[in-house]
Amino acid sequence: MNNIYIQPDNWSIIEEGFEAKRVKSSESLMSLGNGAMGQRANFEEHYSGETFQGSYVAGVYYPDKTRVGWWKNGYPEYFAKVLNAPNWIGINVTINGESLDLAKCNKVENFRRELNMKEGWLSRSFTATLQNFIEVKVETKRFLSLEIDEIGAIEYHVTPLNNDAQINFSPYLDNGITNEDSNWDDKFWDVLSVNHEDEQAFIVSRTMKTNFYVCTAMQTQVSLNGEILEQDKTVNDAIDTIAFTYQNQVTKGDTITLTKFGGYTSDRNHDKNELITVAKKTLNQVTELGFSALLEQQKQAWAKIWDMADITIEGDVAAQQGIRFNIFQLNQTYLGKDARLNIGPKGFTGEKYGGSTYWDTEAYCIPFYMATKDQQVAKSLLEYRYHHLEKAIENAEKLGFTNGAALYPMVTMNGEECHNEWEITFEEIHRNGAIAFAIFNYFRYTGDFSYIPEKGLEVLIGIARFWQQRANFSEAKNKYMILGVTGPNEYENNVNNNWYTNYIAKWCIDYTIETLAKVKEGYSDDYSRIIGKTKLTDNELDLWKEVANNMYFPFSETKNVYLQQDGFLDKELITVENLPKSQRPINQKWSWDRILRSPYIKQADTLQGFYFFEDHFTIEELERHFDFYEPFTVHESSLSPCVHSIQAAKLGRMDQAYEFYLRTSRLDLDDYNHEVEEGLHITSMAGTWMSIVEGFGGMRIVNDTLSFEPKIPAEWNGYSFKVNFRNLILKIHVTKSETKFELEGHRDLEILVNGKAVTISANNLVTV
Amino acid sequence: MNNIYIQPDNWSIIEEGFEAKRVKSSESLMSLGNGAMGQRANFEEHYSGETFQGSYVAGVYYPDKTRVGWWKNGYPEYFAKVLNAPNWIGINVTINGESLDLAKCNKVENFRRELNMKEGWLSRSFTATLQNFIEVKVETKRFLSLEIDEIGAIEYHVTPLNNDAQINFSPYLDNGITNEDSNWDDKFWDVLSVNHEDEQAFIVSRTMKTNFYVCTAMQTQVSLNGEILEQDKTVNDAIDTIAFTYQNQVTKGDTITLTKFGGYTSDRNHDKNELITVAKKTLNQVTELGFSALLEQQKQAWAKIWDMADITIEGDVAAQQGIRFNIFQLNQTYLGKDARLNIGPKGFTGEKYGGSTYWDTEAYCIPFYMATKDQQVAKSLLEYRYHHLEKAIENAEKLGFTNGAALYPMVTMNGEECHNEWEITFEEIHRNGAIAFAIFNYFRYTGDFSYIPEKGLEVLIGIARFWQQRANFSEAKNKYMILGVTGPNEYENNVNNNWYTNYIAKWCIDYTIETLAKVKEGYSDDYSRIIGKTKLTDNELDLWKEVANNMYFPFSETKNVYLQQDGFLDKELITVENLPKSQRPINQKWSWDRILRSPYIKQADTLQGFYFFEDHFTIEELERHFDFYEPFTVHESSLSPCVHSIQAAKLGRMDQAYEFYLRTSRLDLDDYNHEVEEGLHITSMAGTWMSIVEGFGGMRIVNDTLSFEPKIPAEWNGYSFKVNFRNLILKIHVTKSETKFELEGHRDLEILVNGKAVTISANNLVTV
Repeated sequence: MNNIYIQPDNWSIIEEGFEAKRVKSSESLMSLGNGAMGQRANFEEHYSGETFQGSYVAGVYYPDKTRVGWWKNGYPEYFAKVLNAPNWIGINVTINGESLDLAKCNKVENFRRELNMKEGWLSRSFTATLQNFIEVKVETKRFLSLEIDEIGAIEYHVTPLNNDAQINFSPYLDNGITNEDSNWDDKFWDVLSVNHEDEQAFIVSRTMKTNFYVCTAMQTQVSLNGEILEQDKTVNDAIDTIAFTYQNQVTKGDTITLTKFGGYTSDRNHDKNELITVAKKTLNQVTELGFSALLEQQKQAWAKIWDMADITIEGDVAAQQGIRFNIFQLNQTYLGKDARLNIGPKGFTGEKYGGSTYWDTEAYCIPFYMATKDQQVAKSLLEYRYHHLEKAIENAEKLGFTNGAALYPMVTMNGEECHNEWEITFEEIHRNGAIAFAIFNYFRYTGDFSYIPEKGLEVLIGIARFWQQRANFSEAKNKYMILGVTGPNEYENNVNNNWYTNYIAKWCIDYTIETLAKVKEGYSDDYSRIIGKTKLTDNELDLWKEVANNMYFPFSETKNVYLQQDGFLDKELITVENLPKSQRPINQKWSWDRILRSPYIKQADTLQGFYFFEDHFTIEELERHFDFYEPFTVHESSLSPCVHSIQAAKLGRMDQAYEFYLRTSRLDLDDYNHEVEEGLHITSMAGTWMSIVEGFGGMRIVNDTLSFEPKIPAEWNGYSFKVNFRNLILKIHVTKSETKFELEGHRDLEILVNGKAVTISANNLVTV
Repeated sequence: MNNIYIQPDNWSIIEEGFEAKRVKSSESLMSLGNGAMGQRANFEEHYSGETFQGSYVAGVYYPDKTRVGWWKNGYPEYFAKVLNAPNWIGINVTINGESLDLAKCNKVENFRRELNMKEGWLSRSFTATLQNFIEVKVETKRFLSLEIDEIGAIEYHVTPLNNDAQINFSPYLDNGITNEDSNWDDKFWDVLSVNHEDEQAFIVSRTMKTNFYVCTAMQTQVSLNGEILEQDKTVNDAIDTIAFTYQNQVTKGDTITLTKFGGYTSDRNHDKNELITVAKKTLNQVTELGFSALLEQQKQAWAKIWDMADITIEGDVAAQQGIRFNIFQLNQTYLGKDARLNIGPKGFTGEKYGGSTYWDTEAYCIPFYMATKDQQVAKSLLEYRYHHLEKAIENAEKLGFTNGAALYPMVTMNGEECHNEWEITFEEIHRNGAIAFAIFNYFRYTGDFSYIPEKGLEVLIGIARFWQQRANFSEAKNKYMILGVTGPNEYENNVNNNWYTNYIAKWCIDYTIETLAKVKEGYSDDYSRIIGKTKLTDNELDLWKEVANNMYFPFSETKNVYLQQDGFLDKELITVENLPKSQRPINQKWSWDRILRSPYIKQADTLQGFYFFEDHFTIEELERHFDFYEPFTVHESSLSPCVHSIQAAKLGRMDQAYEFYLRTSRLDLDDYNHEVEEGLHITSMAGTWMSIVEGFGGMRIVNDTLSFEPKIPAEWNGYSFKVNFRNLILKIHVTKSETKFELEGHRDLEILVNGKAVTISANNLVTV
């Protein structure tokens, strides 16, 4: 672990003391987001030390021209990346003419930052002695409104402590921003206008190529000891920036405050000619409301989220802080309000992979959103892929597939493939399976079959077609095989018969056939429409069945386990515990070929299949495979520990389950992978939630029934979580001795607890 | 085939008629080189159409910063590439004020170019009508002197045909050149000075990073109807160019001529402060000699080369032209005079891969140079790798190997790895085997063992160490394996147990052990020195033996063949003849993953092993493997057809052998792979030579004895070649009915013909 400095606290992420080397980590950890926009926890005032500046507007991306060393046929022309958006939070401060810059002060004391997750705000306070020996106390608070999601607010207080001082504020907007991960140093933004009116300023700009129009806006206000000052300002505008400057002579001990509202309006939501008008209206609205009232709304909005999504853990503050951090960041990233959006692996906390959609959504995030939100949210996530079906078919065509076969992209913003490593782009095709699985999972959990005849079945058909075409018949083995793939374990590339891929491929075909029959029976109009549209024939179905019924699965008689891929047993099978610490993480210490031919597993691969299809296997089979593969797993993917935690819990290995839980829940807080500076691992945070609910709580759906097998780590006194199951809210509280179930709602719910049926009455507490 | 327009001719490459779309192809095909420098056949005068400009100085390279999409640990920081060098051939011409530009003339007639391979010069002639209606006849001749290899010469004649005309020549030097394959558009050259004195001009420049100092120089002279004119000129110099302008009023029918000598001196051969002085001296020398006398020298120098290296083919002009083109280009690229140089796959004819060293040298080129030059030339090529041994050890260390294991780079200029595709850079490790094989092959052919104790053994030890460490024990198969490699067939990546790689790895270890014993016995001082230096222990030798004696070779009982790699039989085994033409070449039509999982072979892989180690297998085994693999081979590597040609000949399948021969010998002339515009395939040209000598001639070394099994394609009346075998020159002439052997030299030679011993007396013709 890199950099453990976050104070233990049940509800907040707290940093104490200023250390320049932590700045970039804290910028990631204390990022703010409201689903519509987000930003790293950059300082408002100028900071000349090392920092990674980032503001982001959901859905506003840039297709950066692909950069490769050696082009391979089929590579996409561009990589859609999240754009660093204009900065609206900036407030430069000078004190007696000297710029306040934490990197250059004589002294910085009592530095404290708090990301208050309960109420959704970020505060910072410190006492600084400048080079001119003026000592000031600074206190700031900032949040991005959940209620009015085009707006954020900042209060910035400065109190001179040892002298009267001339304190000038220069709040500004800055469109002169770049992406650190730009491939060709292209210009991403074209500024169209820079305006101001009264205390408001606006920059309208357009993204190159994608032509998103965005208005970045601010409104500012100065007060002294809480009283608003009416005062003159100077305005400095340039080609891509605008700043107001307020000059204030402040008496020692008095507090001068700049209040700044700011944010974005974009033509994703408004007419592009109305962007300033809408921004103006919103700024007027929040100015009238005032900072405090807006903050009060924020607390209430977060209280509503927490009421449904919170997990409490008693007796283990690190674990409690970890899970809340995960739940908080997931909600900052995606709230399900906008079906055009998805959950980027880095959310609004960084650039790399940021904002784009991966299979993480289907494999890890959907269960969290199904259980903690209205089921419409998960449905939106499914629909996102439905809307991309045509592009997935085009993507498959580029790779030589025909007849409506669909290959969903590895990384995407608008349905087109963006990634460009052949072993991933072309070969990590298991992603298609997760997309089908999510359709199954959504129905299993919500009981809402209607999505399938409406939209889901078309997606399933495209996916089944892909798998049938992608498999080939091996005469030598008299079976169908899937050659040349990369499984979820990306530490093996271009392998044959990755067990996970073959298994989910067969399952996709079987499930599509089964679903076709159900739709034919119950939704004949939809069935006719879909058959007409997809031109699916009985002949083709026979081909599907031929492949699914004769799929090859590598298996070792000696070890009595399915093999991750054909060649796994030929490797030198030295377990991770025998690997010197100096060699880890292997992705930083070893060359790629050495990783590939090693037995080390980046993330659960065979075990991922056992997780999805748990009911296909006995507990003994799970145990055997867990015992075989876990010792080779280095968990260098953020998506790895959660599945292991769930399976360890199922096997009753609570110590191990707890260890994996901590690792997944505090991955970023404790910076296990030495990379938190670049941003947070948002999608894996949903895996943390699963570790508790499915792992410790043992929650499953068994034949349309919620089922629990509650367990509790030795370190904990108790834990609780809530789930929304088919519009009934069930609260589960587990202690070492008992489990309490409490149902909110209008009707009874029959559940299974450790395999036994228990009926929970509405608004009644049941203890088991 | 793309673009067949080269006229059939025994000794020349002739193009008739001007077509803009052929310009880049002809620029490649008619490239000139003299081992020390080279250039594409760019026009001297300005040409505004599509052209690929290129001049190159042997050994002057630039380490271009690596560009990748996704960095993998272990990638080298840069790719050393051949540099486009300052242009010295340029002669701009204006006629009555209009620039002579073949892309803009009203009419171009009687356009003809000839690359005369017998005498080593390039000529061009045409009649052009300009937009100003002046009609001129132009005739040029150009060559790069073999004798004085820092100099080339041009004669450029213009005759106004329909009017008197003002004809101005502006010969120039231009250092404002760039590389088309530059990764980052870096500046490669830094110009230090631009000077002129009398009719000479000089630009001294330095390469960035590598700091090669190069002086580009010219001397010019104007004559009218063969009489030298003393006349004034104007000089235009700029920051990186210098031009002289000569103005001439020419009477209709008179011929005005510019003679230009030019070239390079560099600090690879001279003190960097003497570059201008040396250039001046050389220019004076050739000016005194004159164009015609220098050309006469050139003819004699080429006559000497042809006397030894020529292959004649009777009755098949396409085949004759093909082989001479190959021999000519090889000699233009590398003459063996400078042990610091090697044979770049594109020689002096293009940029991509250009000038760098690949395994092609050891696998394909050494036999040609051994047989057609003094044996010192082949020895220099071996020494090149000896000098890079330390870097090869460093390269292996970067990939995790220890204890002096050496991995030679895939692509290199100075011994450091340059390439950056993980599946090649890290995995195409078979290259190490070819480097060891060349040492064996050199000794087998020349009988000169002395190189081995002096230098070769150290290389062998480093290579054997690499193989032992790179193999791993598979408990499942109770054998040693080599996992995660790319064989010579680059259409499979990251496969396990590539038969060729495993076979050559075992052979390397066995051969090193055998050689160690021989050196111990016969060269005990060298042995002690080497053991001291390498710290080789008996323990380590035991490890080597353990691996070599227990190496795994994938084999199919059903097919009774060795398998190219573990998974080969699981592929869909559809032969090439069943692949629609529209799908070929697959490297242009298919995505990379599809190629990888297909059975299609880019170049001989298992068969390459059967070629190197022919005497380890029976003819029946060869036939079985040839019949199994050839139908899957698409020959999309220039290195593929020659091996197939040799083996088809051995199997008595002369039609097939002939077809492969044509394909290899006319690969560039007939542009089989649609890429001749980028440059020629120099290294595979040595394979063409092998196709005749080893394939049709059946030449082998059997127990220190030259052996022949002559065959002849039905299309030919006869063919002949010469070989230098241990300082005896043997000429072989094969016709349909008989084979004649003629020996130059001082002693008899016993050879085998079709397995029977025949003694050839010196200076006597023997007919068999």
